[in-house]
Amino acid sequence: MTDHGLASLGDTYINFIYSLAMSERSGKPLGAKVRGSILAEALKRAGLREHMPSRVSKHAIADAAEALAVYAWLKKHVTLEECVSILCSNEEPVDGLTKLFLLIRDRVKF
Amino acid sequence: MTDHGLASLGDTYINFIYSLAMSERSGKPLGAKVRGSILAEALKRAGLREHMPSRVSKHAIADAAEALAVYAWLKKHVTLEECVSILCSNEEPVDGLTKLFLLIRDRVKF
Repeated sequence: MTDHGLASLGDTYINFIYSLAMSERSGKPLGAKVRGSILAEALKRAGLREHMPSRVSKHAIADAAEALAVYAWLKKHVTLEECVSILCSNEEPVDGLTKLFLLIRDRVKF
Repeated sequence: MTDHGLASLGDTYINFIYSLAMSERSGKPLGAKVRGSILAEALKRAGLREHMPSRVSKHAIADAAEALAVYAWLKKHVTLEECVSILCSNEEPVDGLTKLFLLIRDRVKF
Protein backbone atom coordinates (compact mmCIF):
# COMPACT_ATOMS: atom_id res chain seq x y z
CA MET A 1 0.00 0.00 0.00
CA THR A 2 2.99 2.32 -0.06
CA ASP A 3 4.21 1.72 -3.63
CA HIS A 4 4.30 5.12 -5.38
CA GLY A 5 4.17 3.65 -8.89
CA LEU A 6 1.18 1.52 -7.98
CA ALA A 7 -0.54 4.56 -6.43
CA SER A 8 0.09 6.49 -9.63
CA LEU A 9 -1.38 3.68 -11.76
CA GLY A 10 -4.23 3.45 -9.23
CA ASP A 11 -4.94 7.15 -9.68
CA THR A 12 -5.67 6.56 -13.38
CA TYR A 13 -7.79 3.50 -12.49
CA ILE A 14 -9.88 5.31 -9.85
CA ASN A 15 -10.46 8.31 -12.14
CA PHE A 16 -11.57 6.02 -14.94
CA ILE A 17 -14.02 3.88 -12.92
CA TYR A 18 -15.34 6.92 -11.07
CA SER A 19 -15.90 8.76 -14.36
CA LEU A 20 -17.71 5.72 -15.79
CA ALA A 21 -19.92 5.56 -12.69
CA MET A 22 -20.73 9.28 -12.80
CA SER A 23 -21.46 9.00 -16.53
CA GLU A 24 -23.88 6.16 -15.83
CA ARG A 25 -25.55 8.07 -13.00
CA SER A 26 -25.99 11.28 -14.99
CA GLY A 27 -26.92 9.55 -18.24
CA LYS A 28 -24.24 11.41 -20.20
CA PRO A 29 -20.49 10.84 -20.54
CA LEU A 30 -18.23 12.90 -18.31
CA GLY A 31 -14.77 12.83 -16.82
CA ALA A 32 -14.32 13.30 -13.09
CA LYS A 33 -11.53 13.20 -10.55
CA VAL A 34 -11.80 11.84 -7.01
CA ARG A 35 -10.27 14.10 -4.36
CA GLY A 36 -7.58 12.59 -2.15
CA SER A 37 -9.46 13.58 1.01
CA ILE A 38 -12.47 11.50 -0.13
CA LEU A 39 -10.26 8.49 -0.85
CA ALA A 40 -8.54 8.79 2.54
CA GLU A 41 -11.90 9.07 4.34
CA ALA A 42 -13.30 6.02 2.51
CA LEU A 43 -10.24 3.94 3.34
CA LYS A 44 -10.61 4.93 7.00
CA ARG A 45 -14.34 4.09 7.07
CA ALA A 46 -13.61 0.68 5.56
CA GLY A 47 -11.31 -0.05 8.49
CA LEU A 48 -8.19 -0.19 6.35
CA ARG A 49 -6.45 2.86 7.82
CA GLU A 50 -5.20 0.68 10.68
CA HIS A 51 -2.99 -1.27 8.27
CA MET A 52 -0.80 1.80 7.86
CA PRO A 53 1.64 3.47 10.26
CA SER A 54 -0.08 5.98 12.57
CA ARG A 55 1.92 9.05 11.53
CA VAL A 56 1.25 9.36 7.81
CA SER A 57 -0.24 12.25 5.85
CA LYS A 58 -3.71 12.27 4.31
CA HIS A 59 -1.95 12.30 0.96
CA ALA A 60 -0.15 9.03 1.80
CA ILE A 61 -3.46 7.46 2.84
CA ALA A 62 -5.05 8.52 -0.45
CA ASP A 63 -2.07 7.01 -2.29
CA ALA A 64 -2.57 3.76 -0.40
CA ALA A 65 -6.26 3.75 -1.38
CA GLU A 66 -5.36 4.19 -5.07
CA ALA A 67 -2.70 1.48 -4.88
CA LEU A 68 -5.07 -0.94 -3.17
CA ALA A 69 -7.92 -0.35 -5.63
CA VAL A 70 -5.85 -1.09 -8.72
CA TYR A 71 -4.01 -3.95 -6.98
CA ALA A 72 -7.36 -5.67 -6.31
CA TRP A 73 -8.30 -5.24 -9.97
CA LEU A 74 -4.91 -6.36 -11.34
CA LYS A 75 -5.04 -9.48 -9.15
CA LYS A 76 -8.62 -10.15 -10.31
CA HIS A 77 -10.15 -9.90 -6.84
CA VAL A 78 -12.68 -7.47 -8.33
CA THR A 79 -13.87 -6.70 -11.86
CA LEU A 80 -14.03 -3.27 -13.41
CA GLU A 81 -17.78 -3.72 -13.90
CA GLU A 82 -18.52 -4.43 -10.25
CA CYS A 83 -16.38 -1.49 -9.13
CA VAL A 84 -18.31 0.85 -11.45
CA SER A 85 -21.61 -0.65 -10.31
CA ILE A 86 -20.84 -0.04 -6.60
CA LEU A 87 -19.78 3.57 -7.22
CA CYS A 88 -22.81 4.11 -9.42
CA SER A 89 -25.27 2.82 -6.79
CA ASN A 90 -24.23 5.39 -4.18
CA GLU A 91 -25.10 9.06 -4.38
CA GLU A 92 -22.23 10.19 -2.17
CA PRO A 93 -18.77 9.39 -3.58
CA VAL A 94 -17.42 8.62 -0.12
CA ASP A 95 -20.18 6.04 0.47
CA GLY A 96 -19.53 4.29 -2.83
CA LEU A 97 -15.78 4.26 -2.27
CA THR A 98 -16.22 2.97 1.29
CA LYS A 99 -18.31 0.07 -0.04
CA LEU A 100 -15.71 -0.58 -2.70
CA PHE A 101 -12.94 -0.77 -0.10
CA LEU A 102 -15.08 -2.99 2.14
CA LEU A 103 -15.51 -5.39 -0.78
CA ILE A 104 -11.78 -5.30 -1.51
CA ARG A 105 -11.01 -5.80 2.18
CA ASP A 106 -13.22 -8.88 2.15
CA ARG A 107 -11.82 -10.33 -1.10
CA VAL A 108 -8.12 -9.58 -0.59
CA LYS A 109 -8.31 -10.88 3.00
CA PHE A 110 -5.97 -8.70 5.04
CA MET B 1 -16.03 12.99 -32.07
CA THR B 2 -16.82 16.48 -30.77
CA ASP B 3 -18.62 15.58 -27.52
CA HIS B 4 -16.74 17.31 -24.69
CA GLY B 5 -18.08 14.98 -21.99
CA LEU B 6 -17.07 11.95 -24.01
CA ALA B 7 -13.60 13.45 -24.58
CA SER B 8 -13.27 14.02 -20.85
CA LEU B 9 -14.27 10.42 -20.09
CA GLY B 10 -11.93 9.32 -22.89
CA ASP B 11 -9.08 11.21 -21.26
CA THR B 12 -9.41 9.01 -18.15
CA TYR B 13 -9.66 5.90 -20.36
CA ILE B 14 -6.56 6.71 -22.42
CA ASN B 15 -4.50 7.55 -19.34
CA PHE B 16 -5.53 4.28 -17.72
CA ILE B 17 -4.78 1.99 -20.68
CA TYR B 18 -1.58 3.86 -21.48
CA SER B 19 -0.43 3.57 -17.85
CA LEU B 20 -1.22 -0.16 -17.88
CA ALA B 21 0.77 -0.59 -21.10
CA MET B 22 3.76 1.38 -19.78
CA SER B 23 3.62 -0.63 -16.53
CA GLU B 24 3.70 -3.85 -18.53
CA ARG B 25 6.57 -2.62 -20.68
CA SER B 26 8.70 -1.46 -17.77
CA GLY B 27 7.83 -4.39 -15.51
CA LYS B 28 6.76 -2.13 -12.67
CA PRO B 29 3.51 -0.20 -12.04
CA LEU B 30 3.45 3.46 -13.04
CA GLY B 31 1.01 6.17 -13.98
CA ALA B 32 1.47 8.10 -17.20
CA LYS B 33 -0.32 10.74 -19.20
CA VAL B 34 -0.53 10.93 -22.98
CA ARG B 35 0.14 14.38 -24.41
CA GLY B 36 -2.55 15.87 -26.62
CA SER B 37 -0.08 16.46 -29.45
CA ILE B 38 0.71 12.71 -29.56
CA LEU B 39 -3.00 11.85 -29.68
CA ALA B 40 -3.62 14.37 -32.45
CA GLU B 41 -0.68 13.04 -34.47
CA ALA B 42 -1.83 9.42 -34.07
CA LEU B 43 -5.38 10.27 -35.15
CA LYS B 44 -3.94 12.00 -38.23
CA ARG B 45 -1.65 9.08 -39.12
CA ALA B 46 -4.62 6.70 -38.84
CA GLY B 47 -6.41 8.75 -41.49
CA LEU B 48 -9.16 9.88 -39.14
CA ARG B 49 -8.30 13.58 -39.16
CA GLU B 50 -10.25 13.93 -42.40
CA HIS B 51 -13.50 13.18 -40.56
CA MET B 52 -13.22 16.53 -38.80
CA PRO B 53 -13.65 20.09 -40.08
CA SER B 54 -10.44 21.49 -41.56
CA ARG B 55 -10.08 24.50 -39.24
CA VAL B 56 -9.90 22.95 -35.78
CA SER B 57 -7.18 23.24 -33.15
CA LYS B 58 -4.77 20.47 -32.20
CA HIS B 59 -6.54 20.42 -28.84
CA ALA B 60 -9.88 19.67 -30.53
CA ILE B 61 -8.25 16.85 -32.52
CA ALA B 62 -6.83 15.36 -29.30
CA ASP B 63 -10.30 15.61 -27.73
CA ALA B 64 -11.75 13.77 -30.71
CA ALA B 65 -9.12 11.03 -30.32
CA GLU B 66 -10.02 10.59 -26.64
CA ALA B 67 -13.74 10.54 -27.40
CA LEU B 68 -13.28 7.99 -30.18
CA ALA B 69 -11.10 5.66 -28.09
CA VAL B 70 -13.57 5.39 -25.21
CA TYR B 71 -16.56 5.26 -27.59
CA ALA B 72 -15.04 2.18 -29.27
CA TRP B 73 -14.56 0.55 -25.88
CA LEU B 74 -18.02 1.49 -24.55
CA LYS B 75 -19.62 0.08 -27.70
CA LYS B 76 -17.51 -3.10 -27.36
CA HIS B 77 -15.73 -2.67 -30.69
CA VAL B 78 -12.46 -3.19 -28.79
CA THR B 79 -11.57 -4.68 -25.42
CA LEU B 80 -9.45 -3.02 -22.78
CA GLU B 81 -6.98 -5.91 -23.00
CA GLU B 82 -6.39 -5.57 -26.73
CA CYS B 83 -5.94 -1.80 -26.43
CA VAL B 84 -3.31 -2.29 -23.72
CA SER B 85 -1.63 -5.02 -25.75
CA ILE B 86 -1.32 -2.79 -28.85
CA LEU B 87 0.13 0.11 -26.85
CA CYS B 88 2.45 -2.25 -25.05
CA SER B 89 3.85 -3.77 -28.26
CA ASN B 90 5.08 -0.45 -29.63
CA GLU B 91 8.05 1.41 -28.26
CA GLU B 92 6.93 4.80 -29.50
CA PRO B 93 3.62 6.00 -27.99
CA VAL B 94 2.58 7.59 -31.28
CA ASP B 95 3.08 4.27 -33.13
CA GLY B 96 1.00 2.34 -30.60
CA LEU B 97 -1.75 4.92 -30.63
CA THR B 98 -1.76 5.03 -34.44
CA LYS B 99 -2.24 1.24 -34.53
CA LEU B 100 -4.99 1.54 -31.94
CA PHE B 101 -6.84 4.12 -34.04
CA LEU B 102 -6.35 2.04 -37.19
CA LEU B 103 -7.97 -0.91 -35.41
CA ILE B 104 -10.82 1.31 -34.19
CA ARG B 105 -11.20 2.76 -37.66
CA ASP B 106 -11.54 -0.75 -39.04
CA ARG B 107 -13.97 -1.98 -36.37
CA VAL B 108 -16.20 1.07 -36.07
CA LYS B 109 -16.39 1.34 -39.86
CA PHE B 110 -16.42 5.04 -40.65
